Amino acid sequence: MKYSVTTYPPAPQHPVRVLDGVLRYAPIGDLKLETGGVLPDVVLGYETWGELNSDASNAVLVPHALTGSTHVAQGSSDEPGWWDGLVGPGKTIDTDRFFVVSINMLGGCYGSTGPGSADPDGLPWGSRFPFVTIRDSVHAEARLADQLGIRRWHTVLGGSLGGARALEWAVTEPERVARCAVIAATAASTGEQIAFAQAQVAAIRLDPDYNGGDYYNGRAPVAGLGLARRIAHITYRSEAELQYRFGRTPQPGEDPLGAALPAERGRYQVESYLDHQGTKLAGRFDANSYVILTEALMSHDVTRDRGSLSEALAAVRAQFLVAAVDSDRLYFPEQSYELAAALPGENRVHLISAPIGHDGFLTDVLQLRDVLRKDFFG
Amino acid sequence: MKYSVTTYPPAPQHPVRVLDGVLRYAPIGDLKLETGGVLPDVVLGYETWGELNSDASNAVLVPHALTGSTHVAQGSSDEPGWWDGLVGPGKTIDTDRFFVVSINMLGGCYGSTGPGSADPDGLPWGSRFPFVTIRDSVHAEARLADQLGIRRWHTVLGGSLGGARALEWAVTEPERVARCAVIAATAASTGEQIAFAQAQVAAIRLDPDYNGGDYYNGRAPVAGLGLARRIAHITYRSEAELQYRFGRTPQPGEDPLGAALPAERGRYQVESYLDHQGTKLAGRFDANSYVILTEALMSHDVTRDRGSLSEALAAVRAQFLVAAVDSDRLYFPEQSYELAAALPGENRVHLISAPIGHDGFLTDVLQLRDVLRKDFFG
Repeated sequence: MKYSVTTYPPAPQHPVRVLDGVLRYAPIGDLKLETGGVLPDVVLGYETWGELNSDASNAVLVPHALTGSTHVAQGSSDEPGWWDGLVGPGKTIDTDRFFVVSINMLGGCYGSTGPGSADPDGLPWGSRFPFVTIRDSVHAEARLADQLGIRRWHTVLGGSLGGARALEWAVTEPERVARCAVIAATAASTGEQIAFAQAQVAAIRLDPDYNGGDYYNGRAPVAGLGLARRIAHITYRSEAELQYRFGRTPQPGEDPLGAALPAERGRYQVESYLDHQGTKLAGRFDANSYVILTEALMSHDVTRDRGSLSEALAAVRAQFLVAAVDSDRLYFPEQSYELAAALPGENRVHLISAPIGHDGFLTDVLQLRDVLRKDFFG
Repeated sequence: MKYSVTTYPPAPQHPVRVLDGVLRYAPIGDLKLETGGVLPDVVLGYETWGELNSDASNAVLVPHALTGSTHVAQGSSDEPGWWDGLVGPGKTIDTDRFFVVSINMLGGCYGSTGPGSADPDGLPWGSRFPFVTIRDSVHAEARLADQLGIRRWHTVLGGSLGGARALEWAVTEPERVARCAVIAATAASTGEQIAFAQAQVAAIRLDPDYNGGDYYNGRAPVAGLGLARRIAHITYRSEAELQYRFGRTPQPGEDPLGAALPAERGRYQVESYLDHQGTKLAGRFDANSYVILTEALMSHDVTRDRGSLSEALAAVRAQFLVAAVDSDRLYFPEQSYELAAALPGENRVHLISAPIGHDGFLTDVLQLRDVLRKDFFG
């Protein structure tokens, strides 16, 4: 797979009613980054659904997770969205009533300026793309909110990295977030989350095709990215899910003991499944963006330069909804309880009960329908 | 690091009293393998402690884990052993009373024929080294037991892959195992264990220095092996261990947000720790042996060609001790309970209570001292 340098069409004028669920681009200018440098001429890719009301009080931001895109819901497009069950006409987040926005995270590969984008000289950033944090992306997204005429989000709601982005919005821009839902996410990436993430970055860097990040004129590091995804995907699923779904069953037609050399043996089903997950991601995602967003996730810490967790969270003005998946072994429910306890006021944790593990924030999010309707979207 | 082809000194004559804890080599001839081929001129590396008694009733076999060596206890050597607390003069496994044997698993790099060994033409096996199973190694080890004059082991006792090897001994050679201790190990590798193991093998194969396994005349794939170990080591420790020991604290003198490029940033402590674990292993272990033994572990299944688990275990004659580490998230205690329930007779599971995770089978094995003394070594 080869990535071409992304170029951007002219931005549309806002506010206008545009097609739901269609990617657009907004130039937001130069952006000063937390590590000190400046990223020039930043563009954010985004999609919207529904219409902003006259007092701009119905805007909902849905940040995506690590390898997610802005395509939360199908809208007018042919492609299903990744949260179609939750977002759409008549759904919990009813796009007949709410103006839903999803913005590709800074550094991503779904429309926003990232390592595959052109630098001011027209060359792909590649290895020169800077370290960006979730906070940097919030600063960029706040400018897009200004352009869209949104002073204050009715709700910011996300899961996993999307939950971390939602939380960082509520802490960085407390006056601009009225409600915030943080699903299967933590106040700061933990030691283990960093450890697993770093192994994924190391896998990409180990691929000779990665070439330090400058591969846009050659072969993309699909093996390294595939291995990164393979590691990640194991952590996104519970042990029970992997055992009851696959166990040690051979892939049909293959024999794991069927060759004299290990490199030539047949696969177990679970290996074939993870091969598929790795290949699928490598076919749709840019390895450099995977590194950049994973680094951003490792850096995630709402307390950075803000004191203790309680002190950092004292500034929030949003009403919160904290949720976790009971079988999640990457973002443990305990970590959601810690976040809820540190927030101002009384906050309980809503448990999604699903055997799948972390990915329950995608597969079983409708368990939050009632509480979301009652507390946020009633 | 470069590996030279291993050549073997002449085997000593047995039985003789030899130095405790010193590696020796025993040729055991050609070995027919489970996948159908024959590995010629197999040599097993092994160490012993103590003396075999006159009726050969005091022999204890201690199989090592994945990256372990035969050096269970210090003995006459300068090097500490990896279970010195358990094995030695006056210890639970008292080498003044018991004749302790540890054999390097077939395919390993601590004395036994493996990928780094010379083939009949004097060239390293490398990529041509065959798939070997735990059962193959048991067959080889049984020949060494014959040479040593051991018809029946008083005890076979191991943890992790060593526990799987102990269990396979008791099932494959039921008349030759009087007692068997299986610590932090399963009756068959699970879907998740296969998934994590396969990611490790993929990491090694991704390293360009691996060269399909033929690297003995060039650079060893230290980065790939280091990444494999990094992934493995996370699974050997509990989330709580990683969080309370490291959390997201930066490595002293380094700043994880201190550079404009992610590739140049400082590390978190947990990253530095895992770097160290990876580098340390890559400096002492052969990547091909890591692949071969990991493949053997993935293939681990005492039920293969033996019916159900209860049917497979019906043949055992040994008294069993099944133990697990309560915080183990790679070899879950539940899996030890399943094994215990499927064994003939009444078998309870002895829990090692330790927050560390799987590695508790090494760090906290002395919690089994009383039960081992009472039931096995009294």
